[in-house]
Amino acid sequence: MNYPKEDSIVLLYDKKKGKKHIINLKDINNAYSTSNGTIKKDAILQTEFGKAIKTHLDYEYILLSATLNDFIMKKLNRLTQIVYPKDAAYIIFRLDIKPGDTVLESGVGSGAMSAVFAQILGENGKLISYERREEFVKNASKNLRRFNLDKIVEIKHKDIKDGFDEKDVDAIFIDVKEPWLYLGKTVESLKCGKTLGVLVPTINQVSLVLKAFENLPVLDIDVSEILHRFWKTNAERLRPLDVMSAHTAFLIFARKVCL
Amino acid sequence: MNYPKEDSIVLLYDKKKGKKHIINLKDINNAYSTSNGTIKKDAILQTEFGKAIKTHLDYEYILLSATLNDFIMKKLNRLTQIVYPKDAAYIIFRLDIKPGDTVLESGVGSGAMSAVFAQILGENGKLISYERREEFVKNASKNLRRFNLDKIVEIKHKDIKDGFDEKDVDAIFIDVKEPWLYLGKTVESLKCGKTLGVLVPTINQVSLVLKAFENLPVLDIDVSEILHRFWKTNAERLRPLDVMSAHTAFLIFARKVCL
Amino acid sequence: MNYPKEDSIVLLYDKKKGKKHIINLKDINNAYSTSNGTIKKDAILQTEFGKAIKTHLDYEYILLSATLNDFIMKKLNRLTQIVYPKDAAYIIFRLDIKPGDTVLESGVGSGAMSAVFAQILGENGKLISYERREEFVKNASKNLRRFNLDKIVEIKHKDIKDGFDEKDVDAIFIDVKEPWLYLGKTVESLKCGKTLGVLVPTINQVSLVLKAFENLPVLDIDVSEILHRFWKTNAERLRPLDVMSAHTAFLIFARKVCL
Amino acid sequence: MNYPKEDSIVLLYDKKKGKKHIINLKDINNAYSTSNGTIKKDAILQTEFGKAIKTHLDYEYILLSATLNDFIMKKLNRLTQIVYPKDAAYIIFRLDIKPGDTVLESGVGSGAMSAVFAQILGENGKLISYERREEFVKNASKNLRRFNLDKIVEIKHKDIKDGFDEKDVDAIFIDVKEPWLYLGKTVESLKCGKTLGVLVPTINQVSLVLKAFENLPVLDIDVSEILHRFWKTNAERLRPLDVMSAHTAFLIFARKVCL
Repeated sequence: MNYPKEDSIVLLYDKKKGKKHIINLKDINNAYSTSNGTIKKDAILQTEFGKAIKTHLDYEYILLSATLNDFIMKKLNRLTQIVYPKDAAYIIFRLDIKPGDTVLESGVGSGAMSAVFAQILGENGKLISYERREEFVKNASKNLRRFNLDKIVEIKHKDIKDGFDEKDVDAIFIDVKEPWLYLGKTVESLKCGKTLGVLVPTINQVSLVLKAFENLPVLDIDVSEILHRFWKTNAERLRPLDVMSAHTAFLIFARKVCL
Repeated sequence: MNYPKEDSIVLLYDKKKGKKHIINLKDINNAYSTSNGTIKKDAILQTEFGKAIKTHLDYEYILLSATLNDFIMKKLNRLTQIVYPKDAAYIIFRLDIKPGDTVLESGVGSGAMSAVFAQILGENGKLISYERREEFVKNASKNLRRFNLDKIVEIKHKDIKDGFDEKDVDAIFIDVKEPWLYLGKTVESLKCGKTLGVLVPTINQVSLVLKAFENLPVLDIDVSEILHRFWKTNAERLRPLDVMSAHTAFLIFARKVCL
Repeated sequence: MNYPKEDSIVLLYDKKKGKKHIINLKDINNAYSTSNGTIKKDAILQTEFGKAIKTHLDYEYILLSATLNDFIMKKLNRLTQIVYPKDAAYIIFRLDIKPGDTVLESGVGSGAMSAVFAQILGENGKLISYERREEFVKNASKNLRRFNLDKIVEIKHKDIKDGFDEKDVDAIFIDVKEPWLYLGKTVESLKCGKTLGVLVPTINQVSLVLKAFENLPVLDIDVSEILHRFWKTNAERLRPLDVMSAHTAFLIFARKVCL
Repeated sequence: MNYPKEDSIVLLYDKKKGKKHIINLKDINNAYSTSNGTIKKDAILQTEFGKAIKTHLDYEYILLSATLNDFIMKKLNRLTQIVYPKDAAYIIFRLDIKPGDTVLESGVGSGAMSAVFAQILGENGKLISYERREEFVKNASKNLRRFNLDKIVEIKHKDIKDGFDEKDVDAIFIDVKEPWLYLGKTVESLKCGKTLGVLVPTINQVSLVLKAFENLPVLDIDVSEILHRFWKTNAERLRPLDVMSAHTAFLIFARKVCL
């Protein structure tokens, strides 16, 4: 049997409107309210995933288990620009993240990238995330807690201008405004031979990162951008959606050497 | 200290040419031969990652730890079109794969996607991969062994026309020629509320998959494609590379309901 | 001196807001009204292009000559999806349109593509445009008149199911819902060796056009799509805009043979 | 009847291989040689466009009229990177080129963009193209002559560092290495209210052009790039080609004011 637990993150899918409600059951007391009526927590706990569930007004939702994608795209409380799924997924891959790894990140932003790291690192892994703005620390903590990923992430309210406290980590990811100022100290904390990732929104920043790399012990540098195009799902009238995101960020990767 | 182990997968990076050699140390006996001379296995085992190592002809390589990206792009023995990193990473994300999950896949192809699954699933997870062509089973097994991921993947030499043996799995990924023929049986093996991913190269196949979905217990369907554009890394002359991959595959995702 | 004439199409550019007003002077009587005040027609006629002009409320606009791009993007009265500049320009090029050519088109839609044809064909050229819906004929006629291109375009209120009246034309462009039904008759009107262009929004339509071509005297067929990405113009923070058009249409070209 | 003339540019299309031979008939004496045998000039002159023609070895070609697209993509003698059709066509559109206009350009490069201008300008129009490298002047002249467009284009072997000789032209197009050095003088030659186009391959150059514009009498500036993706033409297996051009150039447009 496959029922939600007390701390499950569930998705109520509104088939008519294609709309999604994402709920961590530990965040609600007795009932969850929608514009189409109320659903009791107990009713959710007694409904199998994949089954229909009705509000007191008899409006039907489908109960699904929420994915990290649902969470980031729909539920995350955003104070900042977030790292998008297309980019986040590729960053995980290129940093070669494995369950159990130790990873450094700065800043934490709204916690979207942190959540993706945490899900893959698992309970034996560790993400330490540096963030200098207190309101971001608080908001990201809350976001991670809502997705039950807070135990894997330690958020430090700290500037990285003096570097990270940790050494010899498996991967580092930098998403700050002026990364070129901190890359020297940053690279010191990375295990020899491992990968550093930097995300920047403008190409002028790419240029400054590449210049900073000229004086640092890194090689195998690459710069890329990812475009994600969704298509309409009508089998008889297949065509891309009318609009798409034209840009999120440039991704830069490099590997540390210890000559 | 951070030295290679007997079964480490290492990368010898040729700084002059930007060329990469990827080696699983358990695959070599006494020495590894390059066109620039030979390097003894013992020398590799006694060199820290990130340091330089020389051939008997005094040609220098940098010793790095190979990532899955290196392996798939450079070392994988290909009998088939492979799933590319940009797509593989996003598939992992959308299928919401977590360490310890149980996942079904068909076919195994050259094992690229299987390797990405295996790395994220970790030793507590399991990928069962169905493949009907024997030469693909053999080649993929060899590829996974070379990257020390074979213990996590069970390859079954079996057609999926009668469905999968396993039930109630966390995610399923289908990359076969005529997926629409098998989707009914496939969905039966998926846990209620979980996600199915289908990869197809042509848009006609997308159309047939969408039509098959009309009679299956799935919803929240989307179709997308991912474009990955690399840039030249000269800080003073930033511009995209001249050519890029124009297409690898269309990605289709849907969630199982159990009404 | 470079002053507007009685029938000039002018652009009033609002520097503060980057907003554009496009006016054909023959369409206004004594004055043009903006939300920032009124400008007399005489004042416009006595202002050189490129100079500032003020409303009676002292709000400043810059007087520019309107381009076809301004007209199509800002002023065209749309009853239909229009052909976008990126596509229209490439269609002109691929159909090898020269001043003085004779060209057939169907349907006229809102007249955007017709206007682009007309501007390049010039007064010695001729576009004959077939359109079966009367309201489109009227609206497109009005659009072309507003851009002083109506003399070059003859719009026939006629279905193309029986073919075009004209023969031996230099190029034909088809933008209708079910082009495959009409391509046989259409090709008959084209000069031997010349190019036919077909625009369709969905890929299913591309498939049906390609199938129709199998039984028609055409060769050198290609299918393509054009993506146009704008960048922000801040020299210090260069990056693409956040969103872009993900799709307008697929373009198909083929050449007629007379074996 | 539609036969080639003594100075026609014809295309011999090899149906079996999809290969194209482009020939200006005035360039050949008695016969044209292919790897599949020889075709007499007289035979070509007596074959209607769209018909088959055979070599002395009985190999069949289809006689078509060559388009400017054929010429630029297949026949142009290239000493430089050329302006691609997708870009050239859009430049024509954005510069609002009409038959009979007067246009300035620098440099001439291999003459691809000049040819596109010339075809649209027609015999009543004029393109004056400045080029400082003598070998480019010679090569471009030859290219334009081969496409019978040389009468419309005047190539001046001259640097633009002191500006253009002409004033009050309808449009200007700049494709040189360091355009920011010349934009002040360049803008002086443009009619008030008209459009200037600049093409540069790198984003660093875009930045320098935008900075130069800050001190020049221009407004309504935009920067964009165009991606062109071709699809395979198999109706049953529709998908994009495997590779595409990832980048040709960034296009910058601005309008002159005369305050």
